[in-house]
Amino acid sequence: MNGAEALVSSLIQARVDVCFTNPGTSEMHVVAALDRITGMRCVLGLFEGVVSGAADGYARMTGRPACTLLHLGPGLANGLANFHNAYRAQVPIVSIVGQHALTHLHHDAPLTADIEGLARPYSKWLRTSRTASEVGRDAIEAQIASQTAPHGIATLIVPADVAWTEAGDAVAKAVSVPKPPMPSSKALERAARMLRSGVPTVLLMAGSGLYGKGLKAAGTIAGATKAKLLAPYPITRLERGAGLPPVERMPYILDQAVALLAGFPQIILAGARIPVSYFAYPGKNPVPVPAGCEIHCLATEAEDCAGALEALASLLSAEKSEPSTEPQNIPAVPSGGDLTTVNAAQAIGALLPENAIVVDESMTSGRSLMPATKGCSPHDYLTNTGGSIGIAMPLAVGAAVASPDRRLLCLSADGSGMYTMQGLWTMARESLKVTTIVFANREYAVLKREFSGLGVGNPGDRAKNMFEIGRPDIDWVSLAQGMGVPATRATSVDVFVKALQQGLETDGPTLIEIPL
Amino acid sequence: MNGAEALVSSLIQARVDVCFTNPGTSEMHVVAALDRITGMRCVLGLFEGVVSGAADGYARMTGRPACTLLHLGPGLANGLANFHNAYRAQVPIVSIVGQHALTHLHHDAPLTADIEGLARPYSKWLRTSRTASEVGRDAIEAQIASQTAPHGIATLIVPADVAWTEAGDAVAKAVSVPKPPMPSSKALERAARMLRSGVPTVLLMAGSGLYGKGLKAAGTIAGATKAKLLAPYPITRLERGAGLPPVERMPYILDQAVALLAGFPQIILAGARIPVSYFAYPGKNPVPVPAGCEIHCLATEAEDCAGALEALASLLSAEKSEPSTEPQNIPAVPSGGDLTTVNAAQAIGALLPENAIVVDESMTSGRSLMPATKGCSPHDYLTNTGGSIGIAMPLAVGAAVASPDRRLLCLSADGSGMYTMQGLWTMARESLKVTTIVFANREYAVLKREFSGLGVGNPGDRAKNMFEIGRPDIDWVSLAQGMGVPATRATSVDVFVKALQQGLETDGPTLIEIPL
Repeated sequence: MNGAEALVSSLIQARVDVCFTNPGTSEMHVVAALDRITGMRCVLGLFEGVVSGAADGYARMTGRPACTLLHLGPGLANGLANFHNAYRAQVPIVSIVGQHALTHLHHDAPLTADIEGLARPYSKWLRTSRTASEVGRDAIEAQIASQTAPHGIATLIVPADVAWTEAGDAVAKAVSVPKPPMPSSKALERAARMLRSGVPTVLLMAGSGLYGKGLKAAGTIAGATKAKLLAPYPITRLERGAGLPPVERMPYILDQAVALLAGFPQIILAGARIPVSYFAYPGKNPVPVPAGCEIHCLATEAEDCAGALEALASLLSAEKSEPSTEPQNIPAVPSGGDLTTVNAAQAIGALLPENAIVVDESMTSGRSLMPATKGCSPHDYLTNTGGSIGIAMPLAVGAAVASPDRRLLCLSADGSGMYTMQGLWTMARESLKVTTIVFANREYAVLKREFSGLGVGNPGDRAKNMFEIGRPDIDWVSLAQGMGVPATRATSVDVFVKALQQGLETDGPTLIEIPL
Repeated sequence: MNGAEALVSSLIQARVDVCFTNPGTSEMHVVAALDRITGMRCVLGLFEGVVSGAADGYARMTGRPACTLLHLGPGLANGLANFHNAYRAQVPIVSIVGQHALTHLHHDAPLTADIEGLARPYSKWLRTSRTASEVGRDAIEAQIASQTAPHGIATLIVPADVAWTEAGDAVAKAVSVPKPPMPSSKALERAARMLRSGVPTVLLMAGSGLYGKGLKAAGTIAGATKAKLLAPYPITRLERGAGLPPVERMPYILDQAVALLAGFPQIILAGARIPVSYFAYPGKNPVPVPAGCEIHCLATEAEDCAGALEALASLLSAEKSEPSTEPQNIPAVPSGGDLTTVNAAQAIGALLPENAIVVDESMTSGRSLMPATKGCSPHDYLTNTGGSIGIAMPLAVGAAVASPDRRLLCLSADGSGMYTMQGLWTMARESLKVTTIVFANREYAVLKREFSGLGVGNPGDRAKNMFEIGRPDIDWVSLAQGMGVPATRATSVDVFVKALQQGLETDGPTLIEIPL
């Protein structure tokens, strides 16, 4: 057994059994180990941004890390933007990065780079394996680090000679993942007092507060106390739909966030941070919290958020009240007329299948989506968490690999989609049940809005050239077909409804372009 | 005048007048300045790998830096892989990266990242501007640093509030770029002695030794001394073709490099490093230099390589001999039959127009290209310099922007092409005269070869799944058309010849897919 085999066997033993990858020569011994040892599903991405984003999607749906296997500094570099998003999503990932043989490094060959330096900004744990006998143990430490709250990316750099050297029987045993600690009773009691006070209170949740038992507890708390349930604008995973607790998403636009929070003198944070706008604007306070608002942290990101919500519900005897739930409200299937972002959202709400997973990076074109889908069949809702565009298709790949029995709806803006469209190819190769909708407004609409919002006037020709991505228009039907994904361009409601229905029944990926 | 305007005006004054970009909200004041101030050509890439690779291509052809303007940590991250190549190419680039307002950083908003950490591995100069009154001077320092030998990437991080704050009249004056120093007379004399000795000698050149007056001097030295002229496998820019000094490229494969150098007891390095294989192989010496070989460094990367070659030629009175030149040898235009990598290379050699620029990332499919083109019309030849795949289309974009009167031939492997195919869109938008040829062998052929070469046997199904990029086959004609580039699939010699002829006459980009 060589180091590569010890690495792969150790990971499989620890249930890290999916590998999203784009390997290179320095990873060949790891590839050979993956080839020989049964138990790791390998999924190829034709660009590393697909690989890192897919690992994010997988982790969001399973709570467990996939591993990624990337080629030296440049391979890691290409994966970093979606690792930025994964870092912000606080999901567990074991990022394995190949390195030159340790004996080769001093030659400074063309692919040599400061891999640790590149990995550090997004790694909660970072190590270069030094010997074949230790690489298995390193892998287990990486896996445990990734799954210790707050979850994150553990980067293990594996030199080629560590991989190829005889390791003896150096498979490391899996160890149990530490449970996140509960918050103090003081923190729980303060939250209970605030909620009992009758003062309008926001319960702003993230992490495990937004699905499963954490969300259920939040629903009982809201039912008992009239607390307003909110999620941050960036959402790692939110369960929503008819019968589930209604959680409103913070708006992206600062003024709207200020307006939403204006009536609440109390905010309780459960796994969430104090809200702040994505960007600074001259002369504006980026924190949309009203003056004098009492902010209390019930559970930090490092604590058991779902457990805290359950304990809080229990302290409040909230189970005696009717839980707060979203009423069923499935829009009618629209028909006739031109397709708009509004009736497209209505059609999605009407047709979204039970237990679907919605990946939403539709940006400005998707404003109607959350209202149109809030009362429809229960589903999971995943968004861009770090603001690094180009996550939708990769995230859908990973979520689909994690959830083979569920339908994926992947909503992408055209500007974002162009970043990592290679994800479509992986959907086709793996026959993933993903229906991708590209909203093609042919501009970076956010930037146009921000340009004016920043008080620099209206964009002139040179600025417009940086915001408008038509000239030439991008033909998403051709792009998708070029990567093996059947595609349709929908300009009318009826064409869209039919394409969406067909897509949701197809045993593999499809794409619908909506020219706006 | 605000900081952004001081920045842009200072750069323009220093002849940094092309900006490859994909900006975001934090860069809006810089965009507004680019909009208002005349003199900077802005070229949009729909993915940052296009932006960074284009800046590389521009610098290779002009010797001057373009600037890049990228959005925060993630935008920079997406550009890093081609910055890796640019770093290895030792080309000057002024990399401007937006940053949150300094007042916004402590909020740790979703897009916050350690930008300096991400930039450091590839930056020879790195600074975050602190005030609006200093950002212009910072830009000039960055430009000078990028153009001080060895050239490199100077990264200037510009916080949004530095950009939007009043700067007074803070345009910084251009200063002259320092000339690289000449090597010592001792170094020159030792090289002259070695060449006069009659011992077979290699002159291994890089940087300014491979074009212009440096190359011309090398040709006279070779004519006078029979020195063998070599270039490293990674080539930033090589002038070649009929009438120019014949420079052979080091082979990628280690055993072939060993064989090439075996007959040479002396190697003189002019701007080049001691050759080393890209990767380590168990039990093999990665340095292909024969035992006992005398290696002398005539000029380091920080010295004036072209000047050193001219001085050496003069020391040797080489101008009295006939310079070594490549005889004209233009292949006949092939006709009839199936298209192969061999007759495709022959057609390229036959049809390559005078003064073309050839960008070559054709990988294993391009083995016949250099022999078939060495005696054809003089041209510049640019390759991947850092081993990070996905440089061809971006490099062609930048070289074409730098050289509007020249024809570009962009040769890409399919695996490499999938990394940054968004470059095709920029070619279409800017009507660049680039004919792209994609060699579609539907596999990472290098990896298949390396897998076996590393002694791990033949790849099984799982390994093959990581090397073979068919299933589904990628349709490059659809991809290109989807981004506004007219495209043809050539399966016969005649179709290829016709498509190539047409492409080379089109006033804009075209693409030819060669399925292999």
